[in-house]
Amino acid sequence: MKDTPRVREFSEDQLIARISQYLLILDDVELGPGDDAALVAAPDGRFLVTTDVLVEGRHFVPEWISPVDLGRRAMAQNFADIAAMGARTTSVVVALTIPGDLAVSWLEDLAAGMGQYCAESGASLVGGDLARGEAISIAVTAMGNLDGAAPVLRSGARAGDVIAHAGNIGWGAAGFALLEAGFKGSPEAKAQEVKAQELISAHQVPQPPLKAGVAARRAGATAMLDVSDGLVRDGARLAAASGVVLNFDAAALAAYEEVIRPAAKHLGLDPRTWVLSGGEDHGLLATFPPDALLPDVFTAVGQVLGVPGEEQEQPGNPGVLIEHQPVQIPPGWDHFGG
Amino acid sequence: MKDTPRVREFSEDQLIARISQYLLILDDVELGPGDDAALVAAPDGRFLVTTDVLVEGRHFVPEWISPVDLGRRAMAQNFADIAAMGARTTSVVVALTIPGDLAVSWLEDLAAGMGQYCAESGASLVGGDLARGEAISIAVTAMGNLDGAAPVLRSGARAGDVIAHAGNIGWGAAGFALLEAGFKGSPEAKAQEVKAQELISAHQVPQPPLKAGVAARRAGATAMLDVSDGLVRDGARLAAASGVVLNFDAAALAAYEEVIRPAAKHLGLDPRTWVLSGGEDHGLLATFPPDALLPDVFTAVGQVLGVPGEEQEQPGNPGVLIEHQPVQIPPGWDHFGG
Repeated sequence: MKDTPRVREFSEDQLIARISQYLLILDDVELGPGDDAALVAAPDGRFLVTTDVLVEGRHFVPEWISPVDLGRRAMAQNFADIAAMGARTTSVVVALTIPGDLAVSWLEDLAAGMGQYCAESGASLVGGDLARGEAISIAVTAMGNLDGAAPVLRSGARAGDVIAHAGNIGWGAAGFALLEAGFKGSPEAKAQEVKAQELISAHQVPQPPLKAGVAARRAGATAMLDVSDGLVRDGARLAAASGVVLNFDAAALAAYEEVIRPAAKHLGLDPRTWVLSGGEDHGLLATFPPDALLPDVFTAVGQVLGVPGEEQEQPGNPGVLIEHQPVQIPPGWDHFGG
Repeated sequence: MKDTPRVREFSEDQLIARISQYLLILDDVELGPGDDAALVAAPDGRFLVTTDVLVEGRHFVPEWISPVDLGRRAMAQNFADIAAMGARTTSVVVALTIPGDLAVSWLEDLAAGMGQYCAESGASLVGGDLARGEAISIAVTAMGNLDGAAPVLRSGARAGDVIAHAGNIGWGAAGFALLEAGFKGSPEAKAQEVKAQELISAHQVPQPPLKAGVAARRAGATAMLDVSDGLVRDGARLAAASGVVLNFDAAALAAYEEVIRPAAKHLGLDPRTWVLSGGEDHGLLATFPPDALLPDVFTAVGQVLGVPGEEQEQPGNPGVLIEHQPVQIPPGWDHFGG
């Protein structure tokens, strides 16, 4: 590895040229990378924008994830936020911080992963910045197009609505636990049985059901968000924003537990924790009017209730219930220092 | 300082609430922070976007710059890129990485600086992400509005055009040299004479002439860019993109040297180096048709020449000349590892 070219041996312009070969510029882009700013179409006179950063040692460990997967993951978590508004991502910019001794091939593979994910999703990477720093950091900003429709907010859920979910629940947490327990790319004999590789993949590259966002909006979704911090925590956010209570069906959640139960059993853990508080799956949690036809990718998981009493804005809002009972999840996980 | 509250003692939501009090949401914003993405107006059906990251230890040292100034700087360098397209910045998102032991007051001051700069510039901070990491990193993405006009690219300069510049040249480099030499907030007796505080301020918070961008576009600018890496390097970029040569007037550049000569003399340095290769001033370098009326903030600094011979795209393009002579600047400064 001694002779592997390192990024410090190249100029920024040379590195950008290496990255650019993996990027495709699609029709939404009026002016791509190379000038002071890019110019992107917003046919309905507005655009959505969201940003998320991945930090080495905090969100990922380079030894545990390939640069291609990391590039895909950086895109996926941002595209999920745009999908959660009922829109599609048109374009993305990336501010990348890398150490000087990083292999150029690693940087190219990261760009390849980003380029793949963009191409598959119909989005273009239109600009970026490359800086040197001690740790790898990937700050992505995604822009989206609503095609003239109203965005699906977190605040629109009404008592009587159906709660539905699209995507995985608990897979990321399960995959992380498996990785921690030793499935570092060398699956054990039981790997197949516990879907180890599939769950680890889902941890490394979340699989947000991007098209489900637009589908939900078209089907009349009243509220929606991207589940990045766990079903209960994000459910409580939607509940608080809407002034309602989300009452999940135990049977519906149990079905999600079943999928990851073999992995949990293998590790001696309870899959229920992963389903309730596992993060980074980036599924979409939405509410629909009771008479709406749910898009195929959504599964009904509960009903929206009104807040008991008159204190809709009070701390008394329990936020999330399961079969009308309060939910216990591990405390302390909300702290920035955690 | 032992009792100073640290960010690790708060939840992400609490920190975001602290930051939010410094932010103002203006008319371009249809939906501000708080949902999965923000929604911003793009009245002419397109938007500009650019991103830039500031990394602790690489772009700034916390001991040398106040968090308010750092917040302003992070905005300024991005807004300059939008201005350089002939547009104004409407909105911005920030992905912020901070260590857990950072004082909450530092974070609030950073937000205050960002909020100030946005308010002064008519832009809104519409979203962000907060992550924990070893070093402070501030990735900013700015979006801009062209009001239906064509963007001013780097590639439009034509032989016969006038070269003009708006903003400071060499101030950032001079301020950095003064800081390095010991003007760390405690100005010496000669400080006033050498404009030490003014130059140090210009280093800490660049002063891009933001309104000059739109003014240049309206005055018919044929090409423009933000001077972030020095007059010669960025001039060469514009020259290469346009297939022309920029021939600067020695007298015009000497006038920029005069302003910073006392500081250079104080340090025993040559102000010419700061003018030619000093970065981070974020002035605007533009070209105008010979008959254009230059906006007040621009100063004519040279003329655009054709590339001698027929090899406009060849490495033979000298890019930048001064009084028709090649320019010598220090080598090696272009390397990513440098």
